Amino acid sequence: MDNFTFQSPTRIIFGKKTELEVGKETKKFSNKILLHYGGSSIKKYGLYDKVIKSLKDENIEIFELGGVKPNPRLDLVYEGIKICRDNNINFILAVGGGSAIDSAKAIACGVNYQGDVWDFYTTDKKAGNVLPIGVVLTIPAAGSEASNGSVITREEGLLKKDYVDDAIRPVFAILNPELTFTLPTEQTLCGISDIFAHGLERYFTNTQNVDFTDRLIEGAFKSLINNAYIVLEKPSDYAARAEIMWIGLVMHNGLFGTGREEDWGSHAIEHELSAIYDIAHGAGLSIVFPAWMKYVYKHDLNRFAQFAVRVFGAERYFNDIERTALEGIKRLENFYKEIGLPTKLKDVNIPDTLLEEMANKSTADGPLGHFVKLETKDVLNILKMTIR
Amino acid sequence: MDNFTFQSPTRIIFGKKTELEVGKETKKFSNKILLHYGGSSIKKYGLYDKVIKSLKDENIEIFELGGVKPNPRLDLVYEGIKICRDNNINFILAVGGGSAIDSAKAIACGVNYQGDVWDFYTTDKKAGNVLPIGVVLTIPAAGSEASNGSVITREEGLLKKDYVDDAIRPVFAILNPELTFTLPTEQTLCGISDIFAHGLERYFTNTQNVDFTDRLIEGAFKSLINNAYIVLEKPSDYAARAEIMWIGLVMHNGLFGTGREEDWGSHAIEHELSAIYDIAHGAGLSIVFPAWMKYVYKHDLNRFAQFAVRVFGAERYFNDIERTALEGIKRLENFYKEIGLPTKLKDVNIPDTLLEEMANKSTADGPLGHFVKLETKDVLNILKMTIR
Repeated sequence: MDNFTFQSPTRIIFGKKTELEVGKETKKFSNKILLHYGGSSIKKYGLYDKVIKSLKDENIEIFELGGVKPNPRLDLVYEGIKICRDNNINFILAVGGGSAIDSAKAIACGVNYQGDVWDFYTTDKKAGNVLPIGVVLTIPAAGSEASNGSVITREEGLLKKDYVDDAIRPVFAILNPELTFTLPTEQTLCGISDIFAHGLERYFTNTQNVDFTDRLIEGAFKSLINNAYIVLEKPSDYAARAEIMWIGLVMHNGLFGTGREEDWGSHAIEHELSAIYDIAHGAGLSIVFPAWMKYVYKHDLNRFAQFAVRVFGAERYFNDIERTALEGIKRLENFYKEIGLPTKLKDVNIPDTLLEEMANKSTADGPLGHFVKLETKDVLNILKMTIR
Repeated sequence: MDNFTFQSPTRIIFGKKTELEVGKETKKFSNKILLHYGGSSIKKYGLYDKVIKSLKDENIEIFELGGVKPNPRLDLVYEGIKICRDNNINFILAVGGGSAIDSAKAIACGVNYQGDVWDFYTTDKKAGNVLPIGVVLTIPAAGSEASNGSVITREEGLLKKDYVDDAIRPVFAILNPELTFTLPTEQTLCGISDIFAHGLERYFTNTQNVDFTDRLIEGAFKSLINNAYIVLEKPSDYAARAEIMWIGLVMHNGLFGTGREEDWGSHAIEHELSAIYDIAHGAGLSIVFPAWMKYVYKHDLNRFAQFAVRVFGAERYFNDIERTALEGIKRLENFYKEIGLPTKLKDVNIPDTLLEEMANKSTADGPLGHFVKLETKDVLNILKMTIR
């Protein structure tokens, strides 16, 4: 186990009707806020009205900025920063999924910074004075509601970059699983894929003696798989929605990465796909991960075998560890297919024409990942494995 | 899953040599502190000198109060409160195990309170203005380094009572597994028992649909069991010591209890044993728990069977679930015996003369536990099962 520091101070308010507490929680921090959200879905199902009422009941002054898109854009972040500066706003409430939250985090970093907020996403510079952020979560997926990360896309050059800083962890996160009953199936699926990927990026590590966190991640995988089947059959199953929502937060708040080197190569490769083709992040991940696994598994057959046996209950072939390892990859791929996630580029209508460009772009700042360092040629090979 | 709120903001600094950071971490909160610790062991192995040097390097003024005993006493708490008041101290640094930390928490609650700090342990009153507490942990056991609980013993009447309040979670906890190499075997064992018990109190619940947290607890149990055998064979195995230390914190910071009713009946019964006979809490728990399990298992055979199969890899007898359930209890008891923990009163030389008094005292404020409510007669029956 490696030395580590870990602090995840986000206050979690979890359960039925908890969105009604948003005014009270927000009031602890500010009387004037920027309410930041995406499209029409929060208005369609009444969440917007409930949030506004709860905030107004506490006499909180509300400025609004909607229109956050999946793969949130830098342009809207600039707009949010301007609204906050012009109106002396010192708290941002994100209502939505990872995109709204990541966009809110970027705004929170930019308001008190004289330079361009994009600096934080492209250099080693750290945001000093970050506004506090609150969250009402509607999509279990990104884990941004309690994480220290934010991913933003700049349309010019189609750059998708991330910023990691404990200062951007939300101060509170409200999670009502009932709000996820009405998610389109595709969003439910992409969320499951994203959550799974946050475990995989941590699970495949070169750090030895991480038995406890291995087992935590394995438990999360197993529960996620079981509950995925339930919600796809019955979208308004509260218990299963609750499990997935809670797994989504815990999988990415950092606990499962304590004391170990993490990988994040597959995320970096996926970011190229979603930056260029604007596909859902989760859809890109279920395409990239099986290919990545097939490309790197020989680096640590034991770890892949452990994954196969403990997560998918595969037979442990004591005289053929490679077969055991491959069985785990096959079962993960089958799980993705069975629940309806894409596993090949053709499943999301992406042509194979820009693979080289993506491989070059993704490795422009050096090799990707840590479990196995991926050079440009490796990324290209992995991308080629996603064709068919 | 039940609605819940959860916040565990303690900053964890984990790994080799991390005790050298105590001055820097403390300095963020105060220039004048009460250093609170137990007996001679921290001086014997050089930790005391390192802590003092690290604090002095940051020009922190240090007042000292040593002498915390296992099952920490209220009298010393009063003394600590007086020192803090007399010297305007606004930060307490506990160096030691759960006893030093629990005692520090009590002092932290009492300094700004006009009444008797014992009120918090015996009434519904909540401490308002609690001093921040920092920790350098030397014994993985109580989990107090990041928990919201404190247990104090009043010698008059031999009362052992707890206080639970998020305000008493330490602001930082420094965990260096190397510091645990020199623990006497008995303390290592009692720590393992205490950590295990914190999982058991949460695992046996009536709340349905808690699959994710079930699996997290099961993973912690399995890793704890595996690493227990390693440290007993090789006390200075860093990897195994690190796993146990990290499990000890996570097992009791509240994550594993999210969304579920917890039990805590066995802890309450054990408190009677250690209040009267001053045995180690962990030794009492490995005596009480098997008896409790045998007394209540019929209340939920499935849950006990799940424990047997998932934690101990017991065979699942599909046509005889009771046999499966009992197998888990037997294996836990065997695990305790095998590593050298007591499982009967006679193992710690406690006579069976005061069982009735303990049963009466423990239920003076009403029945114990939640999984099964234990009346006085139930507690007495359980205590009788610990005789031989």
